Amino acid sequence: MTQPALTVASLIRDEQLRLACSTWLPQGRYELMELGLRPDPAAELERCWEQFDAVLLEPGVLSIEAFQRLRAQGRILPAVVLGQLSGPMEFFQDEVHLPPDQMEQLSYSLDAAISRCLRRRSSAGAWEDLHDGESSSEVHDPSNWRLPLRLRERLGYLGVFYKRDSSRFLRNLPAAERKVLLRSLHRTYRDLLISYFRDPVAANKALESFVNTAFFSDLPITKTVEIHVDMIDDFWKKLQLEGHKQDFLKDYRLALLDVMAHLCEMYRRSLPPETSTSDGLVARVVTASQVQS
Amino acid sequence: MTQPALTVASLIRDEQLRLACSTWLPQGRYELMELGLRPDPAAELERCWEQFDAVLLEPGVLSIEAFQRLRAQGRILPAVVLGQLSGPMEFFQDEVHLPPDQMEQLSYSLDAAISRCLRRRSSAGAWEDLHDGESSSEVHDPSNWRLPLRLRERLGYLGVFYKRDSSRFLRNLPAAERKVLLRSLHRTYRDLLISYFRDPVAANKALESFVNTAFFSDLPITKTVEIHVDMIDDFWKKLQLEGHKQDFLKDYRLALLDVMAHLCEMYRRSLPPETSTSDGLVARVVTASQVQS
Repeated sequence: MTQPALTVASLIRDEQLRLACSTWLPQGRYELMELGLRPDPAAELERCWEQFDAVLLEPGVLSIEAFQRLRAQGRILPAVVLGQLSGPMEFFQDEVHLPPDQMEQLSYSLDAAISRCLRRRSSAGAWEDLHDGESSSEVHDPSNWRLPLRLRERLGYLGVFYKRDSSRFLRNLPAAERKVLLRSLHRTYRDLLISYFRDPVAANKALESFVNTAFFSDLPITKTVEIHVDMIDDFWKKLQLEGHKQDFLKDYRLALLDVMAHLCEMYRRSLPPETSTSDGLVARVVTASQVQS
Repeated sequence: MTQPALTVASLIRDEQLRLACSTWLPQGRYELMELGLRPDPAAELERCWEQFDAVLLEPGVLSIEAFQRLRAQGRILPAVVLGQLSGPMEFFQDEVHLPPDQMEQLSYSLDAAISRCLRRRSSAGAWEDLHDGESSSEVHDPSNWRLPLRLRERLGYLGVFYKRDSSRFLRNLPAAERKVLLRSLHRTYRDLLISYFRDPVAANKALESFVNTAFFSDLPITKTVEIHVDMIDDFWKKLQLEGHKQDFLKDYRLALLDVMAHLCEMYRRSLPPETSTSDGLVARVVTASQVQS
């Protein structure tokens, strides 16, 4: 039984970016629909809205008015924004950002966007709807509700819990791909360190990318520490050669702490809660209130 | 259908400790069998070995010879050692240590000991035995193999994966118990900081206690950071009042990093692995090799 892939609307004009998207999204799991070069991408997106499970977005391809229109209709999809890491601009809620030089992480970012979207829905009281099929009064467009069901059916998402695809775990990748992913993670971590004390918005986006990819690629925690130590060592040597002080580099441990705390919280929330029944047996019970905590 | 509790052999002589054990082990889940005051606790332990699912141990109650005898028979149980946090002594494999002033965390430590024991068994190639009931040639005493099955039946352990009892999550405890547990966690964290740079063995044990309790009580990650910050603030003020330098306190971020890394790895390993089947659906498949990674 072959299941169709999830359908991803690509709102991207830049040729390099379009090429990178088709390179780094694993076929079979995602099907790309390119709308970026159409005369009116926004109209196309709205016309075929019900086909899409997620969106890839290059800033500037949709107008502010188009976003306002979508928002007014309650139309929100998991989104990955591919562009420069600056400015606090938000297109969709809970979108995930990925800089163009780290496209190797695209599929992990998309998984993160989908998981976030599911979590947000659930915490907005959508959990029951997911299970009994009734539509909620908070939702303007019932087509929105197809998404969680579809994700659950096709990718095995357990409601709002992250479900990772182990074929894309770092240790299960072919050696060459593993190397590429690690290099990309190094770039992301470098972005984090460089912006950490001087550009909080950029730092947050880099942190987010790093944590998403670490989680969905099941990166061992020691590897994260190793990336930090390697990079700080490099900075240290460079500063020493140039005759600068290096002691302030210790403060970058805060960046690593930040990464660990976020990653840890992500793992913590991805464990389905268990509750004891009265006879002492443990049963699997998932309620919306537990999910939010 | 009422299930009997897990049976815990208590090899403790100290009266305060015995009292604390019966206070802090939740009834219904664990049944305590006190052997510590018997004339020959080791003989009693061996005689009734098959009844026990875990052991509480005060150093000195069993002789070195008794341990050697148990080890020679391949007899190993999940164990919590209740005593002073010093020296690298190991009684059972993978035992968990808890200092006497932190007995509030006893049930969490016991869960940690059980989980570890299950993991070790699994990584020793025991996974298949757990499922098809065949005994392995590596095992000297088949009575050992009852344990994982019993744990699975009674507490719902998913093979080797940590299964937490949400009734003991911090947020689900009555307010008074919550306060007691948090105070105890503060004491453990304090032990960690005090020993961090001067007594690695003691630091490791405190770190272990903290991480175990944080995991099994589902402590929010922000709370861990808060405990660290509170404690460092207190030290800072104290040193300032006494006219000492305080800058070295920043180095204690390494202790927090250590806690985060361990906790994160524990959460990471507690997620059951998933693998993709050829048609793109995600199936739940657990293999011994994945468990070890």
